[in-house]
Amino acid sequence: MQTTLAIDAMGGDFGPTVTVPAALSFLADSVDSAVILVGRQADIHAELKKANAITSYASRLNVIDAPDVVGMDEDIRSAIRNKKNSSMRIAIDLVKSGEAHACISAGNTGALMGTAKFVLKTLPGIDRPAICAALPSRKGAVYVLDLGANAESTPAHLLQFAIMGAMLCAAVEGKQNPTVGLLNIGSEDIKGNEKTKQAAELLKASHLNYFGNVEGTDIYKGTTDVVVCDGFVGNVMLKASEGIAKMMGDFLKEEYQKNIFRQLMALVSLPALNGFKQRLDHRQYNGAALLGLRGIVVKSHGSADAFSFQRAILRAKSEAEHGLIARISTEVERLHLEGLLQPSKTIVEE
Amino acid sequence: MQTTLAIDAMGGDFGPTVTVPAALSFLADSVDSAVILVGRQADIHAELKKANAITSYASRLNVIDAPDVVGMDEDIRSAIRNKKNSSMRIAIDLVKSGEAHACISAGNTGALMGTAKFVLKTLPGIDRPAICAALPSRKGAVYVLDLGANAESTPAHLLQFAIMGAMLCAAVEGKQNPTVGLLNIGSEDIKGNEKTKQAAELLKASHLNYFGNVEGTDIYKGTTDVVVCDGFVGNVMLKASEGIAKMMGDFLKEEYQKNIFRQLMALVSLPALNGFKQRLDHRQYNGAALLGLRGIVVKSHGSADAFSFQRAILRAKSEAEHGLIARISTEVERLHLEGLLQPSKTIVEE
Repeated sequence: MQTTLAIDAMGGDFGPTVTVPAALSFLADSVDSAVILVGRQADIHAELKKANAITSYASRLNVIDAPDVVGMDEDIRSAIRNKKNSSMRIAIDLVKSGEAHACISAGNTGALMGTAKFVLKTLPGIDRPAICAALPSRKGAVYVLDLGANAESTPAHLLQFAIMGAMLCAAVEGKQNPTVGLLNIGSEDIKGNEKTKQAAELLKASHLNYFGNVEGTDIYKGTTDVVVCDGFVGNVMLKASEGIAKMMGDFLKEEYQKNIFRQLMALVSLPALNGFKQRLDHRQYNGAALLGLRGIVVKSHGSADAFSFQRAILRAKSEAEHGLIARISTEVERLHLEGLLQPSKTIVEE
Repeated sequence: MQTTLAIDAMGGDFGPTVTVPAALSFLADSVDSAVILVGRQADIHAELKKANAITSYASRLNVIDAPDVVGMDEDIRSAIRNKKNSSMRIAIDLVKSGEAHACISAGNTGALMGTAKFVLKTLPGIDRPAICAALPSRKGAVYVLDLGANAESTPAHLLQFAIMGAMLCAAVEGKQNPTVGLLNIGSEDIKGNEKTKQAAELLKASHLNYFGNVEGTDIYKGTTDVVVCDGFVGNVMLKASEGIAKMMGDFLKEEYQKNIFRQLMALVSLPALNGFKQRLDHRQYNGAALLGLRGIVVKSHGSADAFSFQRAILRAKSEAEHGLIARISTEVERLHLEGLLQPSKTIVEE
């Protein structure tokens, strides 16, 4: 089966100058896939022309015109109400209609999540979608969620996140029964606040491969395959990690640039320095899953370059091909039958 | 005036083998200070003998015997009830009685905080003590609290933390009116959960130099002098930062050790690599303040070496000499008069 991916070509800091080359490179590598580029036709065609690729992938490349663009600072309400012809909205609509198996956008996270929730709706049994990304660890990718889709979560939400994260990890990493850790401020059971204590009870009672509490350090140690946390905590954790990693990278660069001798040292050290850079290349990990929706939506970093954006496309493809949505649905249903999840209440939309 | 510091000589992973050399080195550098070493007399004397220092600082060095030691995993209740003759407890008692201006311990954080709260009590107007540490940033030290003394905090607690953090920064960094940021998941006012929204209102109404919301990345950018957050969030953030920093350091080391050529490169690169290491040396930042108590208590990292432990002693000295407790009390009183802080309710002790 050919997997078709809808790409919001206008999203992100660089729009079609990044998304179009990434899509072309993806098409060249993935001969079993098709792409629908959604955005301002003229801009997309200009990029295709630059790459001499207008006819190269004739049967696997479509362009759909979308006159509007959702701004990087645009609020959710405005994106949903006023941008029905935006590249972001139409890319999501294509997932809803079944014309695409997944969509990818580097646009504004809030608007993407809001629009996706509005168009696709959440899966039965899931109250709130969550954002899940793979973070690098000593033992490979660790799937952490929620990274900020929700500013507040209940213990039941944390259980739902755990199911979604475990199913994502199982699907794309091929792990049969991934371990799940609950992010906490100590490893002992008595640690944490009321929310984590109640969430721990739910997780223990579930059939998930629940490891127990994990701490901030465990994320990068790779103690568990999946780490579950409230969106506020996850977002702060992620951004603080980015912050210190950036500072360390800058310090290292500055030390090697202090004088001409050190610049020479950097030159002879290139293999080691490049090895270091590569092992930490956040671009490899680009592409966060918006989980809990009735369709696959992947969010790329806004500042992604073509290599990085292509990684996000590959994630969407992998999620689609490994039947992520069906896996999550089945697991949620199982927990319902076990009585662990209450029938989904109507959630007031923010 | 001579500043006298009580040191829990038994605390930490290495006990007197670290605390005694650190104390001696501190005494050599700080001729206006005195030290009381509290712990098992025989162990302390053995270390003093090793260093040939039994008589060197006769008038400035005292040893007080404490037969008990609080275990690194001992729970708070047991430490308070059963370890009245522990080095930790007696060091805190010395602050209470006024015989020492401050105390330093590398022991178990929970027991230290619990015992300090029990013996010293909180300052009027402060409901909960908080843990505050200086973290490295592009612009120097940033004071972040609460780092985990509390698993849950109210908006009023966050305001109290802000006052304490600002006064600590003002005292030891000599900044007249330090800027205070509220750790949140976005910079706009509307971002965050109920708690941060209410805390923001309190902070705006206070006379603190309130900057507004800051995100995880801002900590290491040094956007504000002080960053305030709930203890759960702060603890996860701190440990995740430690985790990724450790991983990056290990990766760099591994890349330089891959083969003999790279080891040679590391050798010629030593000035740059050492410069990098020094700029990130967490040992410089050792010594977290337990704020909100009627006395100065500094917590050293359990794995601190002598250099690092000495830094913690120096922090305690600086806090004492800059009148930290009086500064916090005055500010809290001011906010009471302005009606921003409610009269302290009796808090049920955990």
